[in-house]
Amino acid sequence: MKYSIGIDIGGTNSAFGIVDKKGRIIFQNSIPTKEFLLVEDFIEALHKELFPAIEKYGQQQMKGIGIGAPNGNFYNGSIEFAPNLQWKGIIPLSKLFEEKFLLPSVVTNDANAAAIGEMMYGAAKGMKDFIMVTLGTGVGSGFVANGKMIYGHDGFAGELGHTIAIRDGRLCGCSRKGCLETYTSATGIVTTAYEFLSNSETSSLLRSAIHINAKTIYEAAVKGDELALQIFDYTGKILGQSLADAVAITSPEAIILFGGLAQAGKYIFEPTYRYMQDNLLIIYKDKVKLLPSELKEGDVAILGAAALVWN
Amino acid sequence: MKYSIGIDIGGTNSAFGIVDKKGRIIFQNSIPTKEFLLVEDFIEALHKELFPAIEKYGQQQMKGIGIGAPNGNFYNGSIEFAPNLQWKGIIPLSKLFEEKFLLPSVVTNDANAAAIGEMMYGAAKGMKDFIMVTLGTGVGSGFVANGKMIYGHDGFAGELGHTIAIRDGRLCGCSRKGCLETYTSATGIVTTAYEFLSNSETSSLLRSAIHINAKTIYEAAVKGDELALQIFDYTGKILGQSLADAVAITSPEAIILFGGLAQAGKYIFEPTYRYMQDNLLIIYKDKVKLLPSELKEGDVAILGAAALVWN
Repeated sequence: MKYSIGIDIGGTNSAFGIVDKKGRIIFQNSIPTKEFLLVEDFIEALHKELFPAIEKYGQQQMKGIGIGAPNGNFYNGSIEFAPNLQWKGIIPLSKLFEEKFLLPSVVTNDANAAAIGEMMYGAAKGMKDFIMVTLGTGVGSGFVANGKMIYGHDGFAGELGHTIAIRDGRLCGCSRKGCLETYTSATGIVTTAYEFLSNSETSSLLRSAIHINAKTIYEAAVKGDELALQIFDYTGKILGQSLADAVAITSPEAIILFGGLAQAGKYIFEPTYRYMQDNLLIIYKDKVKLLPSELKEGDVAILGAAALVWN
Repeated sequence: MKYSIGIDIGGTNSAFGIVDKKGRIIFQNSIPTKEFLLVEDFIEALHKELFPAIEKYGQQQMKGIGIGAPNGNFYNGSIEFAPNLQWKGIIPLSKLFEEKFLLPSVVTNDANAAAIGEMMYGAAKGMKDFIMVTLGTGVGSGFVANGKMIYGHDGFAGELGHTIAIRDGRLCGCSRKGCLETYTSATGIVTTAYEFLSNSETSSLLRSAIHINAKTIYEAAVKGDELALQIFDYTGKILGQSLADAVAITSPEAIILFGGLAQAGKYIFEPTYRYMQDNLLIIYKDKVKLLPSELKEGDVAILGAAALVWN
């Protein structure tokens, strides 16, 4: 068998592809997750997109399907109570995929899949201790220690996005308050933008924007917009503080940032690194690298999910 | 060789013993760490206490020395910038021990040593994912995932006591503010007691105490003293909140509490567990045990340190 299928289920979009053993994506596409109220309809739509490609490269050449999904559980193949998905409760994802595709299917947290992709083909190549942080619709994370993914006793380890950044802070989709992801996700930074716009009188390009999203804020920052720079500084502060605490737990060689917000480059990396350094316990100072993903956005989670199948 | 030597260096006292392969301590004693301004004098005093026992059981029967120490580094055998010790900077501990005792010496974090002891002989027997938290002069921790101690890339992983419990909170020995250990160590709870005594007018047995320490507060709580119960509730709240965040990272089967403050039994366990549950992300609720150490206070760190030698 020559290929595996990697599927990355995100809160907004789901990307999928067919990957060869060397990590080359020979086919890929995506569908909007949010449009499917029922997981069965989602799998049906995925199948419709993927099946012609599977036929083309040969069903018997497919080793299996690896799926990265929010709250995906490596041990039992389900997703459970994912706050950023419309499919509530416990969804037996690998079982549903196996029934539809007639291929063995493995599930993990989408951020864990990204971490595996980065470890095999990207910025974490050769590292035994690192943290992958995905700044997308939500904030996901994958912790690798001693060269192994930390799944935890129940398969649900690595929810840095749901550690509390600000006690009694913003209401989170998980129903608690102050989770990191309410501040440092691509949606969190938009909330910050609206807060800053209403709490200050600083003139800003964002005041005339029809729609504010992470990209709009980035574009304003590139043009030197002071308020946009303040918004990134604040977001980097919250993220840097939380990363400093995460370092105190697993002491990683590097932290890799990935996802929509990470694409803002220096505007998010510079303040995040500075505040992380400021908040680190002395024994960790100047030791932890903050790196961008080395894989193409969209590719990394597909590659990681596909790599799961070979393990 | 039949025996190994385990040494547990604490901020206040250091315990040491000779342990056989089955984990029986055949000799043990302790000296007060704080009385030695120079690490060389400390090792000299240790040698004086240990040497007769080493002679008795035979120097050639000793496999080596395992040392658990604050900020102890497994990879290079040193202790570095330990905030609760008087020996500042970088101390090449294993080298100094090897020169004095002529035995191979291994160093780790004191809490990591406790975790290894608990995993081999105590409450974590058979567990692959757990967290050991020591509530002594400071707050130490050891994280085990996939059955292995997490040392991190530099040997310094597992400093839960120096994650920030309250942003801009109490000044810590590490020079930062709001570290967990300033609230939930045996010394932190005393600070809380003084704060509660000065900020309230509630009558309390503690008002007439000559000296307040964790034990005094415990004894008052046993007698139903309302303020003492409030002090434990507050301490459990801070600890439970931080443990809920730690669970979101490694998703352990259990958290084991050990050390002076843990000896307060239900007075600290009950509020800690309740606040941890209240603050857990839904996927972790009712899954994480909060357990007391199953080894005798004093024994666990000696056993863990000694076990390091056999690994």
